[in-house]
Amino acid sequence: MAYADTRFLTRRRALSARLAGQRIDAMLVTNLIHVRYLSGFSGSNAALVLAKDLTAEIATDGRYRTQIAEEVPDIEAVIARPCAEALLGRIEGPRRIGFEADYVSVAQLEQLREACREDVTLVPVTGVIEDIRLRKDPVERERLTEVAALACRAFEELLDAGELAVGRTERDVAADLEYRMRLLGAERTSFDTIVASGPNSAKPHHSAGDRVIKGGDPVTIDFGAHARGFNSDMTRTVVMGEAGDFVREIYDVVLRAQLAGIAAATPGTPLVEVDRAARAIIEEAGYGEYFVHSTGHGIGLEVHEGPSASRVGAGDLAEDMTLTIEPGIYIPERGGVRIEDTLLITAGAPQIITPVGKELRVV
Amino acid sequence: MAYADTRFLTRRRALSARLAGQRIDAMLVTNLIHVRYLSGFSGSNAALVLAKDLTAEIATDGRYRTQIAEEVPDIEAVIARPCAEALLGRIEGPRRIGFEADYVSVAQLEQLREACREDVTLVPVTGVIEDIRLRKDPVERERLTEVAALACRAFEELLDAGELAVGRTERDVAADLEYRMRLLGAERTSFDTIVASGPNSAKPHHSAGDRVIKGGDPVTIDFGAHARGFNSDMTRTVVMGEAGDFVREIYDVVLRAQLAGIAAATPGTPLVEVDRAARAIIEEAGYGEYFVHSTGHGIGLEVHEGPSASRVGAGDLAEDMTLTIEPGIYIPERGGVRIEDTLLITAGAPQIITPVGKELRVV
Repeated sequence: MAYADTRFLTRRRALSARLAGQRIDAMLVTNLIHVRYLSGFSGSNAALVLAKDLTAEIATDGRYRTQIAEEVPDIEAVIARPCAEALLGRIEGPRRIGFEADYVSVAQLEQLREACREDVTLVPVTGVIEDIRLRKDPVERERLTEVAALACRAFEELLDAGELAVGRTERDVAADLEYRMRLLGAERTSFDTIVASGPNSAKPHHSAGDRVIKGGDPVTIDFGAHARGFNSDMTRTVVMGEAGDFVREIYDVVLRAQLAGIAAATPGTPLVEVDRAARAIIEEAGYGEYFVHSTGHGIGLEVHEGPSASRVGAGDLAEDMTLTIEPGIYIPERGGVRIEDTLLITAGAPQIITPVGKELRVV
Repeated sequence: MAYADTRFLTRRRALSARLAGQRIDAMLVTNLIHVRYLSGFSGSNAALVLAKDLTAEIATDGRYRTQIAEEVPDIEAVIARPCAEALLGRIEGPRRIGFEADYVSVAQLEQLREACREDVTLVPVTGVIEDIRLRKDPVERERLTEVAALACRAFEELLDAGELAVGRTERDVAADLEYRMRLLGAERTSFDTIVASGPNSAKPHHSAGDRVIKGGDPVTIDFGAHARGFNSDMTRTVVMGEAGDFVREIYDVVLRAQLAGIAAATPGTPLVEVDRAARAIIEEAGYGEYFVHSTGHGIGLEVHEGPSASRVGAGDLAEDMTLTIEPGIYIPERGGVRIEDTLLITAGAPQIITPVGKELRVV
């Protein structure tokens, strides 16, 4: 428990250090993911106020009285509904309180204002906690590596068991993969599992439907596990029975693009250049118009978070960030291929935490 | 498809009819659940503008080009990112455009304002679409009944197969229940499955952990399936091997409270009275302080939506609403019981769409 306390306190310290730059006395945190990041509390209703001097209060409702005492031994808990309003109402004296303008709705802000005493001013703040979250601490890197390994193992088990097979539906395959992830420790999927077979593989975000998988189909499986707050994300395209020339050709292009993206993913590289490295290969092969999304995104407490490797992604990669590299080619009504890994950015070559083979696999 | 068109058009008509009362020319819809409700589009990035005269435009990004053409044949689709800004930028001439103030963040509103021409005014609107959603149309009632039946069947299969057993972990039981729901057609769970055994049953929102289920444990299973946009929600507490006097006593109280709540759930009844009907039984038995949440909530496209049967729930029940009735008693460190059904409110007695037996079940 001492270990956990230190981790959350270190994060609160990082936030507190940035409050001065925002000209605020304290920060009201209402995004539940951020509440969890800063305190360890995993319930579905909570708010947290952190002052410059590191004093903190957390609020939740009566359903979580026992849970919050266990998960957050080091912050005083207020049991009240609505949480954020209760915390604001306790703040006395002239104070400037930051709120998370990216998550507080226009209507909610009105309610928060009503809960404040007259001399309390609410100040919009954006991106501060997200910025701290960009670089993963050792516990986060360990959790991310573990949840990714769990998902990889489930995928290998699925293939070994012959559960990806002609004659089964996309839904059956997704159910088996999810069950295997669950038994290996996932609390849920990190997003709806995609099993996109045949022409469905041309839809980048097809989920998993009633289509029966046929011989010759490319099948794109994009899936993730969620465990202990963290998410995984990876994609492989497998071919059923025999791969036709079309699939072989686009698979080769996508794989080369994906490897180029990984090679570019080093600290100091502008994110637009990571995207460019992958996209250039696809464009040179004449498929540029069929790569309809960005190259990758960060992953952590959220399945999609910063940084963003896209044509317009701002900033540079840095050590201890995460990044997916997931180029794809999607040709409507014919089919598609996507290959995706999740990387931990290190001082040297990135660490691929989804190390499942990427040779064209025919099952 | 004509059937589907009519349904979404009918809903857009209902919204359009209410725009006059809001003194706006059109409504920008950014809540994805509302976009789906009004158009049928199920992708993860979209916005919709609906004008008083029922003209509509919908936007999504390039990943969903194929999908939106299939799912929304009757509205012109704009492929652009960011979606809401793209739609606003196309609006000419002096116009008052409503936006969903409960979902648009303070920061996003600034971006929306920047996307508008000078003579376009954004006007906060709350609760209008939610109000339409309160009363379920025939397709919604059918879908809700189907997804609830699917979840009930999975639960019965779980018990019949002996998968809820001493020696297994909470997580294993949850995984089996979820897998059965998935095979029966669920796309995902509607919320994290709760399997709360022994002392964990005293935590109303415990999820499903590594605890091994023991003889004598009460085990509270609260679970739901999500399919075709709709959610289910039900809870049963089962006892392992032999039920002690303590569990028998609180089970009896909770069941009587639950039946009283159901009996009160008729059109025209104030929601506070539905809550009161269930709560009074628990209070009379001396356990009032251990019923730490409200009696129930509506369910539909969201697992928690209006109406709310709580001590402060506003308004009355009406025909075609949904409502869960889910009283519970939770005694820290000893254990707890919760029993929950989902109801469709009809002119007569409510229809229980989760008709699994509620006698104390010992397995």
